[in-house]
Amino acid sequence: MKNLDRFIETYDDFPKKGIAFKDLLGIMQDSQVFRELIIKMCSNQVIKDAEAIVSIEARGFIFGSAISFHSSKPMIVARKPGKLPGELIQENYNLEYGKNSLSIQKEALKKFNTYAIIDDLLATGGTAKCVANLIKNNGKKVTGLLTVVELIELNGRSKFNFPVSSILSA
Amino acid sequence: MKNLDRFIETYDDFPKKGIAFKDLLGIMQDSQVFRELIIKMCSNQVIKDAEAIVSIEARGFIFGSAISFHSSKPMIVARKPGKLPGELIQENYNLEYGKNSLSIQKEALKKFNTYAIIDDLLATGGTAKCVANLIKNNGKKVTGLLTVVELIELNGRSKFNFPVSSILSA
Repeated sequence: MKNLDRFIETYDDFPKKGIAFKDLLGIMQDSQVFRELIIKMCSNQVIKDAEAIVSIEARGFIFGSAISFHSSKPMIVARKPGKLPGELIQENYNLEYGKNSLSIQKEALKKFNTYAIIDDLLATGGTAKCVANLIKNNGKKVTGLLTVVELIELNGRSKFNFPVSSILSA
Repeated sequence: MKNLDRFIETYDDFPKKGIAFKDLLGIMQDSQVFRELIIKMCSNQVIKDAEAIVSIEARGFIFGSAISFHSSKPMIVARKPGKLPGELIQENYNLEYGKNSLSIQKEALKKFNTYAIIDDLLATGGTAKCVANLIKNNGKKVTGLLTVVELIELNGRSKFNFPVSSILSA
Protein backbone atom coordinates (compact mmCIF):
# COMPACT_ATOMS: atom_id res chain seq x y z
CA MET A 1 0.00 0.00 0.00
CA LYS A 2 1.43 3.28 -1.15
CA ASN A 3 2.08 5.89 1.53
CA LEU A 4 0.83 3.78 4.44
CA ASP A 5 4.05 4.60 6.27
CA ARG A 6 3.06 8.29 6.27
CA PHE A 7 0.32 7.37 8.75
CA ILE A 8 2.62 5.51 11.14
CA GLU A 9 4.69 7.40 13.67
CA THR A 10 7.73 6.08 15.53
CA TYR A 11 8.31 7.00 19.18
CA ASP A 12 11.75 6.20 20.58
CA ASP A 13 12.03 4.77 24.09
CA PHE A 14 8.31 3.98 24.45
CA PRO A 15 6.95 2.23 26.46
CA LYS A 16 10.49 1.81 27.76
CA LYS A 17 14.10 2.65 26.92
CA GLY A 18 15.44 0.96 23.79
CA ILE A 19 12.03 0.32 22.21
CA ALA A 20 11.10 2.24 19.06
CA PHE A 21 7.31 2.16 19.29
CA LYS A 22 5.27 2.16 16.06
CA ASP A 23 2.06 4.12 16.50
CA LEU A 24 -0.49 2.99 13.91
CA LEU A 25 -3.40 5.08 15.19
CA GLY A 26 -2.90 7.65 12.43
CA ILE A 27 -4.30 5.09 9.99
CA MET A 28 -7.73 5.15 11.62
CA GLN A 29 -7.71 8.95 11.56
CA ASP A 30 -7.99 8.82 7.76
CA SER A 31 -11.05 6.81 6.84
CA GLN A 32 -9.94 6.22 3.22
CA VAL A 33 -6.57 4.85 4.27
CA PHE A 34 -8.17 2.65 6.93
CA ARG A 35 -10.70 1.35 4.39
CA GLU A 36 -8.03 0.58 1.81
CA LEU A 37 -5.91 -1.22 4.42
CA ILE A 38 -8.77 -3.38 5.71
CA ILE A 39 -9.83 -4.36 2.19
CA LYS A 40 -6.26 -5.31 1.39
CA MET A 41 -5.95 -7.37 4.57
CA CYS A 42 -9.24 -9.17 3.84
CA SER A 43 -7.92 -10.21 0.43
CA ASN A 44 -4.96 -11.99 2.05
CA GLN A 45 -4.86 -15.78 1.71
CA VAL A 46 -4.38 -16.14 5.47
CA ILE A 47 -7.88 -14.68 5.94
CA LYS A 48 -9.44 -16.47 3.00
CA ASP A 49 -8.25 -19.86 4.26
CA ALA A 50 -9.65 -19.35 7.76
CA GLU A 51 -13.06 -20.12 9.15
CA ALA A 52 -12.59 -17.43 11.81
CA ILE A 53 -10.08 -14.87 13.00
CA VAL A 54 -8.49 -14.42 16.41
CA SER A 55 -7.56 -10.87 17.41
CA ILE A 56 -5.00 -10.02 20.04
CA GLU A 57 -5.72 -7.38 22.73
CA ALA A 58 -5.84 -4.45 22.42
CA ARG A 59 -4.56 -2.92 19.19
CA GLY A 60 -5.27 -6.17 17.35
CA PHE A 61 -8.97 -5.62 18.09
CA ILE A 62 -8.95 -2.45 15.98
CA PHE A 63 -7.83 -4.23 12.82
CA GLY A 64 -9.42 -7.60 13.62
CA SER A 65 -12.87 -6.20 14.16
CA ALA A 66 -12.97 -4.34 10.85
CA ILE A 67 -11.55 -7.38 9.06
CA SER A 68 -14.20 -9.56 10.69
CA PHE A 69 -16.92 -7.15 9.59
CA HIS A 70 -15.72 -6.78 6.00
CA SER A 71 -14.78 -10.43 5.42
CA SER A 72 -17.81 -11.84 7.26
CA LYS A 73 -15.48 -14.13 9.22
CA PRO A 74 -16.43 -14.54 12.87
CA MET A 75 -13.94 -13.27 15.44
CA ILE A 76 -12.74 -14.57 18.78
CA VAL A 77 -10.24 -12.74 20.99
CA ALA A 78 -7.06 -13.41 22.97
CA ARG A 79 -6.89 -11.23 26.07
CA LYS A 80 -4.60 -10.41 28.97
CA PRO A 81 -5.12 -11.80 32.48
CA GLY A 82 -8.31 -10.91 34.32
CA LYS A 83 -10.18 -9.64 31.28
CA LEU A 84 -12.17 -12.65 30.06
CA PRO A 85 -15.00 -14.31 32.01
CA GLY A 86 -15.83 -18.01 31.88
CA GLU A 87 -13.66 -21.07 31.45
CA LEU A 88 -10.33 -20.11 29.86
CA ILE A 89 -7.26 -21.67 28.32
CA GLN A 90 -4.05 -19.79 29.02
CA GLU A 91 -0.43 -19.59 27.81
CA ASN A 92 2.52 -17.50 28.99
CA TYR A 93 4.84 -15.56 26.69
CA ASN A 94 7.82 -13.22 26.65
CA LEU A 95 7.12 -9.87 25.07
CA GLU A 96 9.62 -7.49 23.44
CA TYR A 97 9.25 -5.49 26.66
CA GLY A 98 8.16 -7.66 29.58
CA LYS A 99 6.35 -10.91 30.34
CA ASN A 100 2.66 -11.72 30.27
CA SER A 101 0.02 -14.32 29.47
CA LEU A 102 -2.90 -14.53 27.08
CA SER A 103 -6.21 -16.36 27.39
CA ILE A 104 -8.97 -17.49 25.06
CA GLN A 105 -12.45 -18.56 26.13
CA LYS A 106 -12.70 -22.34 25.85
CA GLU A 107 -16.23 -22.26 24.42
CA ALA A 108 -15.25 -19.68 21.80
CA LEU A 109 -12.32 -21.71 20.50
CA LYS A 110 -14.55 -24.78 20.18
CA LYS A 111 -16.80 -23.07 17.64
CA PHE A 112 -14.40 -22.98 14.68
CA ASN A 113 -11.62 -25.17 13.32
CA THR A 114 -9.24 -22.84 11.46
CA TYR A 115 -8.05 -19.45 12.64
CA ALA A 116 -6.15 -16.51 11.13
CA ILE A 117 -4.21 -14.63 13.81
CA ILE A 118 -4.49 -10.82 13.54
CA ASP A 119 -2.33 -8.24 15.25
CA ASP A 120 -1.15 -4.72 14.54
CA LEU A 121 2.59 -5.42 14.60
CA LEU A 122 5.00 -8.34 14.33
CA ALA A 123 8.10 -7.68 16.43
CA THR A 124 9.80 -10.70 18.03
CA GLY A 125 6.61 -12.71 17.53
CA GLY A 126 6.20 -13.68 21.18
CA THR A 127 2.56 -12.65 21.43
CA ALA A 128 1.50 -14.30 18.19
CA LYS A 129 3.43 -17.45 19.09
CA CYS A 130 1.52 -17.58 22.37
CA VAL A 131 -1.80 -17.35 20.51
CA ALA A 132 -0.69 -19.97 17.98
CA ASN A 133 0.12 -22.32 20.86
CA LEU A 134 -3.27 -21.68 22.44
CA ILE A 135 -4.97 -22.65 19.20
CA LYS A 136 -2.81 -25.64 18.25
CA ASN A 137 -2.56 -27.13 21.73
CA ASN A 138 -6.33 -27.29 21.75
CA GLY A 139 -6.68 -29.22 18.53
CA LYS A 140 -7.36 -26.35 16.14
CA LYS A 141 -5.45 -25.09 13.10
CA VAL A 142 -3.75 -21.76 12.36
CA THR A 143 -3.98 -20.62 8.72
CA GLY A 144 -1.37 -17.93 9.30
CA LEU A 145 -0.47 -14.67 10.95
CA LEU A 146 -1.43 -11.34 9.40
CA THR A 147 -0.17 -8.02 10.76
CA VAL A 148 -0.13 -4.47 9.49
CA VAL A 149 3.56 -3.85 10.21
CA GLU A 150 6.48 -6.25 10.47
CA LEU A 151 9.81 -5.29 12.04
CA ILE A 152 11.96 -7.28 9.64
CA GLU A 153 15.22 -7.05 11.59
CA LEU A 154 13.77 -8.88 14.59
CA ASN A 155 12.99 -11.87 12.35
CA GLY A 156 9.89 -12.79 14.33
CA ARG A 157 8.57 -14.79 11.38
CA SER A 158 11.24 -17.45 11.95
CA LYS A 159 9.21 -18.57 14.99
CA PHE A 160 6.34 -19.80 12.84
CA ASN A 161 5.74 -22.84 10.66
CA PHE A 162 2.70 -21.31 8.95
CA PRO A 163 2.33 -18.38 6.52
CA VAL A 164 3.22 -14.95 7.91
CA SER A 165 2.04 -11.88 6.04
CA SER A 166 2.31 -8.16 6.67
CA ILE A 167 1.25 -5.10 4.72
CA LEU A 168 4.29 -2.98 5.55
CA SER A 169 7.88 -3.88 6.42
CA ALA A 170 9.77 -1.53 8.70
CA MET B 1 -32.48 -5.87 17.24
CA LYS B 2 -34.31 -9.15 17.64
CA ASN B 3 -32.49 -11.87 19.56
CA LEU B 4 -29.35 -9.85 20.22
CA ASP B 5 -29.64 -10.80 23.88
CA ARG B 6 -29.15 -14.46 22.92
CA PHE B 7 -25.56 -13.58 22.05
CA ILE B 8 -24.82 -11.87 25.36
CA GLU B 9 -23.91 -13.90 28.41
CA THR B 10 -24.02 -12.72 32.01
CA TYR B 11 -21.33 -13.81 34.49
CA ASP B 12 -22.06 -13.14 38.14
CA ASP B 13 -19.28 -11.86 40.40
CA PHE B 14 -16.89 -10.98 37.54
CA PRO B 15 -14.43 -9.31 37.58
CA LYS B 16 -15.30 -9.03 41.27
CA LYS B 17 -18.03 -9.89 43.76
CA GLY B 18 -21.32 -8.10 43.21
CA ILE B 19 -20.72 -7.31 39.53
CA ALA B 20 -22.87 -9.09 36.93
CA PHE B 21 -20.58 -8.94 33.91
CA LYS B 22 -22.13 -8.77 30.43
CA ASP B 23 -20.01 -10.68 27.92
CA LEU B 24 -20.72 -9.40 24.40
CA LEU B 25 -18.09 -11.48 22.62
CA GLY B 26 -20.71 -13.96 21.41
CA ILE B 27 -21.92 -11.26 18.99
CA MET B 28 -18.65 -11.32 17.04
CA GLN B 29 -18.78 -15.11 16.88
CA ASP B 30 -21.79 -14.83 14.55
CA SER B 31 -20.81 -12.71 11.57
CA GLN B 32 -24.41 -12.01 10.51
CA VAL B 33 -25.40 -10.77 13.95
CA PHE B 34 -22.26 -8.64 14.17
CA ARG B 35 -22.93 -7.17 10.71
CA GLU B 36 -26.54 -6.37 11.53
CA LEU B 37 -25.52 -4.71 14.80
CA ILE B 38 -22.82 -2.54 13.23
CA ILE B 39 -25.13 -1.41 10.43
CA LYS B 40 -27.76 -0.50 12.99
CA MET B 41 -25.24 1.43 15.10
CA CYS B 42 -23.99 3.31 12.03
CA SER B 43 -27.52 4.47 11.27
CA ASN B 44 -27.78 6.12 14.69
CA GLN B 45 -28.05 9.91 14.74
CA VAL B 46 -25.18 10.12 17.24
CA ILE B 47 -22.87 8.72 14.54
CA LYS B 48 -24.42 10.66 11.67
CA ASP B 49 -23.96 13.97 13.48
CA ALA B 50 -20.27 13.34 14.24
CA GLU B 51 -17.21 14.13 12.21
CA ALA B 52 -15.31 11.33 13.99
CA ILE B 53 -15.79 8.68 16.64
CA VAL B 54 -13.84 8.06 19.82
CA SER B 55 -13.60 4.45 21.01
CA ILE B 56 -12.86 3.46 24.59
CA GLU B 57 -10.27 0.75 25.36
CA ALA B 58 -10.51 -2.15 24.97
CA ARG B 59 -13.93 -3.60 24.19
CA GLY B 60 -15.02 -0.28 22.72
CA PHE B 61 -12.36 -0.78 20.02
CA ILE B 62 -14.20 -3.86 18.74
CA PHE B 63 -17.40 -1.98 18.00
CA GLY B 64 -15.78 1.38 17.26
CA SER B 65 -13.46 0.04 14.63
CA ALA B 66 -16.18 -1.71 12.63
CA ILE B 67 -18.40 1.38 12.94
CA SER B 68 -15.51 3.54 11.73
CA PHE B 69 -14.98 1.24 8.76
CA HIS B 70 -18.62 0.99 7.75
CA SER B 71 -19.57 4.63 8.36
CA SER B 72 -16.32 6.02 6.91
CA LYS B 73 -15.93 8.20 10.00
CA PRO B 74 -12.37 8.47 11.27
CA MET B 75 -11.65 7.06 14.72
CA ILE B 76 -9.52 8.20 17.62
CA VAL B 77 -9.10 6.24 20.85
CA ALA B 78 -9.20 6.76 24.61
CA ARG B 79 -6.77 4.47 26.39
CA LYS B 80 -5.65 3.50 29.86
CA PRO B 81 -2.40 4.76 31.44
CA GLY B 82 0.89 3.85 29.77
CA LYS B 83 -0.64 2.74 26.49
CA LEU B 84 -0.48 5.84 24.27
CA PRO B 85 2.74 7.49 23.08
CA GLY B 86 3.18 11.20 22.46
CA GLU B 87 1.66 14.21 24.15
CA LEU B 88 -1.53 13.26 25.99
CA ILE B 89 -4.48 14.81 27.73
CA GLN B 90 -5.72 12.83 30.71
CA GLU B 91 -8.73 12.61 33.05
CA ASN B 92 -9.43 10.42 36.06
CA TYR B 93 -12.67 8.52 36.65
CA ASN B 94 -14.41 6.12 39.01
CA LEU B 95 -15.42 2.84 37.41
CA GLU B 96 -18.21 0.49 38.49
CA TYR B 97 -15.35 -1.62 39.86
CA GLY B 98 -12.27 0.46 40.69
CA LYS B 99 -10.56 3.71 39.73
CA ASN B 100 -8.57 4.60 36.65
CA SER B 101 -7.71 7.28 34.13
CA LEU B 102 -8.07 7.65 30.38
CA SER B 103 -5.94 9.53 27.89
CA ILE B 104 -6.32 10.80 24.34
CA GLN B 105 -3.48 11.91 22.09
CA LYS B 106 -3.49 15.71 21.88
CA GLU B 107 -2.71 15.75 18.16
CA ALA B 108 -5.49 13.24 17.40
CA LEU B 109 -8.16 15.26 19.19
CA LYS B 110 -7.13 18.40 17.28
CA LYS B 111 -8.02 16.82 13.95
CA PHE B 112 -11.81 16.80 14.27
CA ASN B 113 -14.43 18.99 15.93
CA THR B 114 -17.36 16.69 16.78
CA TYR B 115 -17.12 13.23 18.29
CA ALA B 116 -19.48 10.30 18.92
CA ILE B 117 -18.38 8.29 21.95
CA ILE B 118 -18.53 4.51 21.41
CA ASP B 119 -18.35 1.80 24.05
CA ASP B 120 -19.69 -1.69 24.50
CA LEU B 121 -21.69 -1.09 27.67
CA LEU B 122 -23.18 1.79 29.64
CA ALA B 123 -23.18 1.00 33.36
CA THR B 124 -22.71 3.90 35.79
CA GLY B 125 -21.33 5.98 32.94
CA GLY B 126 -18.03 6.84 34.64
CA THR B 127 -15.83 5.88 31.73
CA ALA B 128 -17.91 7.66 29.09
CA LYS B 129 -18.17 10.73 31.34
CA CYS B 130 -14.39 10.79 31.57
CA VAL B 131 -14.09 10.69 27.77
CA ALA B 132 -16.75 13.39 27.39
CA ASN B 133 -14.76 15.61 29.76
CA LEU B 134 -11.57 14.96 27.79
CA ILE B 135 -13.32 16.11 24.62
CA LYS B 136 -15.24 19.08 26.01
CA ASN B 137 -12.45 20.44 28.19
CA ASN B 138 -10.33 20.68 25.08
CA GLY B 139 -12.78 22.73 23.08
CA LYS B 140 -14.44 19.95 21.07
CA LYS B 141 -18.08 18.78 20.93
CA VAL B 142 -19.68 15.44 21.80
CA THR B 143 -22.61 14.46 19.55
CA GLY B 144 -23.63 11.69 21.92
CA LEU B 145 -22.84 8.34 23.46
CA LEU B 146 -23.67 5.12 21.67
CA THR B 147 -23.29 1.72 23.35
CA VAL B 148 -24.45 -1.79 22.54
CA VAL B 149 -25.91 -2.51 25.98
CA GLU B 150 -27.26 -0.18 28.65
CA LEU B 151 -27.81 -1.27 32.25
CA ILE B 152 -30.98 0.76 32.77
CA GLU B 153 -31.17 0.38 36.57
CA LEU B 154 -27.83 2.14 37.08
CA ASN B 155 -29.21 5.24 35.32
CA GLY B 156 -25.81 6.12 33.86
CA ARG B 157 -27.49 8.27 31.21
CA SER B 158 -28.45 10.84 33.86
CA LYS B 159 -24.76 11.88 33.91
CA PHE B 160 -24.93 13.27 30.36
CA ASN B 161 -26.37 16.42 28.80
CA PHE B 162 -26.13 15.00 25.25
CA PRO B 163 -28.00 12.17 23.46
CA VAL B 164 -27.40 8.68 24.85
CA SER B 165 -28.38 5.71 22.71
CA SER B 166 -28.07 1.97 23.15
CA ILE B 167 -29.17 -0.99 21.07
CA LEU B 168 -30.22 -3.20 23.96
CA SER B 169 -31.46 -2.41 27.47
CA ALA B 170 -30.67 -4.89 30.21
